[in-house]
Amino acid sequence: MAMTGVLRPGHVAVRVLDLDEAVKFYGDVMGLVETGRDDQGRVYFKCWDEQDHNSYIIREADQAGVDFVGFKVLDSDTLNRLEKDLNAYGVETRRIEAGDMLETGERVRFTLPSGHEFELFADKTKVGNGMGLTNPAPWYSQSEHGIAPLRLDHMLLYGPDIAKVKAIFEDVLGFYLVERVLGEDNETEAGIWLSCSHKVHDIAFVEYPEPGKLHHTSFLMDSWEQVLRAGDIMSMNEVAVDIGPTRHGITRGCTIYAWDPSGNRFETFMGGYHPYPDYETITWTWDNFAQGLDYPQRKLHESFLTVVS
Amino acid sequence: MAMTGVLRPGHVAVRVLDLDEAVKFYGDVMGLVETGRDDQGRVYFKCWDEQDHNSYIIREADQAGVDFVGFKVLDSDTLNRLEKDLNAYGVETRRIEAGDMLETGERVRFTLPSGHEFELFADKTKVGNGMGLTNPAPWYSQSEHGIAPLRLDHMLLYGPDIAKVKAIFEDVLGFYLVERVLGEDNETEAGIWLSCSHKVHDIAFVEYPEPGKLHHTSFLMDSWEQVLRAGDIMSMNEVAVDIGPTRHGITRGCTIYAWDPSGNRFETFMGGYHPYPDYETITWTWDNFAQGLDYPQRKLHESFLTVVS
Amino acid sequence: MAMTGVLRPGHVAVRVLDLDEAVKFYGDVMGLVETGRDDQGRVYFKCWDEQDHNSYIIREADQAGVDFVGFKVLDSDTLNRLEKDLNAYGVETRRIEAGDMLETGERVRFTLPSGHEFELFADKTKVGNGMGLTNPAPWYSQSEHGIAPLRLDHMLLYGPDIAKVKAIFEDVLGFYLVERVLGEDNETEAGIWLSCSHKVHDIAFVEYPEPGKLHHTSFLMDSWEQVLRAGDIMSMNEVAVDIGPTRHGITRGCTIYAWDPSGNRFETFMGGYHPYPDYETITWTWDNFAQGLDYPQRKLHESFLTVVS
Amino acid sequence: MAMTGVLRPGHVAVRVLDLDEAVKFYGDVMGLVETGRDDQGRVYFKCWDEQDHNSYIIREADQAGVDFVGFKVLDSDTLNRLEKDLNAYGVETRRIEAGDMLETGERVRFTLPSGHEFELFADKTKVGNGMGLTNPAPWYSQSEHGIAPLRLDHMLLYGPDIAKVKAIFEDVLGFYLVERVLGEDNETEAGIWLSCSHKVHDIAFVEYPEPGKLHHTSFLMDSWEQVLRAGDIMSMNEVAVDIGPTRHGITRGCTIYAWDPSGNRFETFMGGYHPYPDYETITWTWDNFAQGLDYPQRKLHESFLTVVS
Repeated sequence: MAMTGVLRPGHVAVRVLDLDEAVKFYGDVMGLVETGRDDQGRVYFKCWDEQDHNSYIIREADQAGVDFVGFKVLDSDTLNRLEKDLNAYGVETRRIEAGDMLETGERVRFTLPSGHEFELFADKTKVGNGMGLTNPAPWYSQSEHGIAPLRLDHMLLYGPDIAKVKAIFEDVLGFYLVERVLGEDNETEAGIWLSCSHKVHDIAFVEYPEPGKLHHTSFLMDSWEQVLRAGDIMSMNEVAVDIGPTRHGITRGCTIYAWDPSGNRFETFMGGYHPYPDYETITWTWDNFAQGLDYPQRKLHESFLTVVS
Repeated sequence: MAMTGVLRPGHVAVRVLDLDEAVKFYGDVMGLVETGRDDQGRVYFKCWDEQDHNSYIIREADQAGVDFVGFKVLDSDTLNRLEKDLNAYGVETRRIEAGDMLETGERVRFTLPSGHEFELFADKTKVGNGMGLTNPAPWYSQSEHGIAPLRLDHMLLYGPDIAKVKAIFEDVLGFYLVERVLGEDNETEAGIWLSCSHKVHDIAFVEYPEPGKLHHTSFLMDSWEQVLRAGDIMSMNEVAVDIGPTRHGITRGCTIYAWDPSGNRFETFMGGYHPYPDYETITWTWDNFAQGLDYPQRKLHESFLTVVS
Repeated sequence: MAMTGVLRPGHVAVRVLDLDEAVKFYGDVMGLVETGRDDQGRVYFKCWDEQDHNSYIIREADQAGVDFVGFKVLDSDTLNRLEKDLNAYGVETRRIEAGDMLETGERVRFTLPSGHEFELFADKTKVGNGMGLTNPAPWYSQSEHGIAPLRLDHMLLYGPDIAKVKAIFEDVLGFYLVERVLGEDNETEAGIWLSCSHKVHDIAFVEYPEPGKLHHTSFLMDSWEQVLRAGDIMSMNEVAVDIGPTRHGITRGCTIYAWDPSGNRFETFMGGYHPYPDYETITWTWDNFAQGLDYPQRKLHESFLTVVS
Repeated sequence: MAMTGVLRPGHVAVRVLDLDEAVKFYGDVMGLVETGRDDQGRVYFKCWDEQDHNSYIIREADQAGVDFVGFKVLDSDTLNRLEKDLNAYGVETRRIEAGDMLETGERVRFTLPSGHEFELFADKTKVGNGMGLTNPAPWYSQSEHGIAPLRLDHMLLYGPDIAKVKAIFEDVLGFYLVERVLGEDNETEAGIWLSCSHKVHDIAFVEYPEPGKLHHTSFLMDSWEQVLRAGDIMSMNEVAVDIGPTRHGITRGCTIYAWDPSGNRFETFMGGYHPYPDYETITWTWDNFAQGLDYPQRKLHESFLTVVS
């Protein structure tokens, strides 16, 4: 968590083309736990090892993509303070009332220069990870239902003006820049990996002309062997895989990228190192981006670079 | 890192009975990188993936044990603020001047109720992890020299009055209680696992009549396979192993415990989950402590519970 | 498989004290597949990745232990030839008719000098591993039901006169000696690891005054991570663990040993190397047997050495 | 090993374009152990865990590719018998005298219908795996020098008339067909995976108009984590990777394919299951070959299917 009180990615709301198909996919193939449905037609999921009521929310729409991304903050004082800080920085915010999302408190919403709807919130009902708080087992049956990621890890968003996005995250929200990819000019930042913790990324952005696009939502796996297992399950269920299993040079993380049935890319991810705010940023130069993307193969995968939802 | 600005365990200073033997052990068997020696006869080491100049310091003495433990904070403003907070809380502090430790700035030292010397510092020279900041490889030769842990992870200290210790860490330093073990009365806390981050522990304490004792210093490994490799290297070098490889119920971490040639216990550790300050504390009851200690075997290992340095 | 036509351990028949409890244990905790019950009250199991109808058979009795061990041979010509070879070598055999065991052909039974009933058979109905023979998946739901070993791997038997046992396996059945442990005199073989394949062992014997005893039946796991998972499941089900997770020096295999509810020891095993009949035997000396048994800890575990069923 | 006495792949002789470059590649990047050079300009290597003097031999030539493949048999009686069996089957053989290859006995050479030079031999000097035969460690420094495969595992050869090749391997040499891929007609075998052991393949062939081509030589790795490490080392050394890390549907093996500096493809491989001669053959249909090749991605990789040396 950042010293500003921003804790972690708390939820992401994604649009799907066919709700029934998506519920089946996220419940049985991805192995998320369905925790509720609201009167707006949204279906709520959590990863098995998460404590809060929900982290991944889907709704049916004509076009895939991301509706909004929310980060949890420590408490309502933090929420109020950060809202003031955002406003003082020139970022307009608006409040979404408690209860608009199931089991979720008031949210402070604003639009990023990249065109993404971003929000902060302090309250979400704790439902536990299914193993209780006394003498808990390390895992249980749900941990092996489908791909079964541990938690929502981060998301990579595509849109314009990521320099301005970075400023907000660094100057107001207390994130720091862990890694970056330089563009063809070897000067401008084409991609930025931001952390509010000692994770290698809590959120990342790539410069892209079209606003508000989703490159992928990332789910954390427990080991490289679990990434392989995820790939097996994808194949058994005819999930469209983009790249992997492989390791990124960027973040050192190990990964498979694939698409949900609506064309929203997701990642099953593990590894990486443990940066802190006093670390210096790592830079990937344009000419070596292939190694940053797919470390063993050193290949630029066309679809990975161009397809977003 | 905590919202107070406490980042992470920065260094631990340990006494050894024979310096040459210890240098050989920590350099070649443990695979730490020696980074310097000072005129007090201390030898400085770091783990290969750490950025700062040193994290593990040894000196020769008649008795094994721990001299002091230091946590890094964000900057000197944070250091000054935390010192004032400590004093206001009734904790006396003293300054140790910059340069007393190699490549390390001024330290704010105080004595914990458990009898341990604890300190905060803001500055330590960055020497990097050996792979540079531009297009870095994920690892290099040093990553396979000896056991080669990634970083200093945490330490478990034994001493009296851990309830008072906990108060200082929670109330002043911004740590939170991740897990705890209850004593025979199933009420008092016999052991506490404290985090200033989303690690399962940055420091831990067990109630013990004798002050200032070291149970173990923990080093982070990258995978369960690397824990096995660590065990192989221990055997090849006739290192005295206490328990493991095994998994703890407490923290879910996977581990081997062994002793350096002087009798200081260390841990090669991986895994665990990712708690946050808004998580509720997990409790291990006295009657089930065996499962908390050694999950597969559910055994209370006598030496683990009683031997400290 | 040996050049004599001996293929692999085909079945082992074990006595349990309470059949219902054992069926629950082997079905749900061990994760074997129950494939049938016969009119002698025996319950038949197979491991999920085995092709033949059964490999692990239990019956209720007053005392735990092993009834008999059977190895599969290539075909009935091989069976007839090996019977003649055994008889010519001075080993008396008797035929047990086809159908005595479910879905199993005629067996050639003889008593080993160690007091164990050992048999060869050529036919057992193929029921497949559940994934078919066309475009099979690498695994399926049964592969994650309980501990879910891949196959029956080997067994370690305790009894007298293992030098004579070795002679039969080497001279008649075509096994070769992969590793051995010398006794206190550093000359006699106290333990022998025999292979009829390029596995590190298909069967092993330890010299012991009492005839016909079972030290353990071993089940193959897919990885060191799966051994850890097996240990977790043992703990979740209050299985009594003897040693592990650890690595053996002998065979390099990685392992946990535990007991079924009746006190029959079993092993969840992976790893080891790949010997061939032209390899020279590896010898473990008496004074270093601790490292051979538990490589990281270099400890002689009393229970492991003395408890058999 | 087959019941005929054919043990395992013993050596493969490969042509390289630049000997110095290749020696550096196989010694330092692949991590093979150089064991000798002969007066024909050939350089001999072995994998660290192999017992015999050599298994991978290179010589400089104008064109990459494979000179010959040799399998070790049990002894010279076996060699003589198999030669007679081959001749009786209509396969012409010729003897290459002992000493033509360093530390290698007489070889029986013949040309396969696929155009490959294939040979059997009984003798190769044992040099050991570097860890001795008494109380050996499970591994040592050479086990971490470069990619460091355990052993030569198998090779995949491309050429015409693989039906005839299969007949020789099955009818004379005692191999059995573990898996096969059907061609577009869903009837003819386009690819065959043959075993003389309980490995998923000791040699494999794909139907191809041009005779005597090498698709890849495969080296065995110890775990999926070691396959990832191999990929890291490939990237660090700018090795051209073809596909992977991934899992095959065929054999369930996990793999990376890459090219040596001369364009000879090699594989770093682990996993698969454990077939026996009494197993039924698994069939991959043409329409599902993509899943057989790259299980997670279900993609036909053009280069993998068409590039040979």
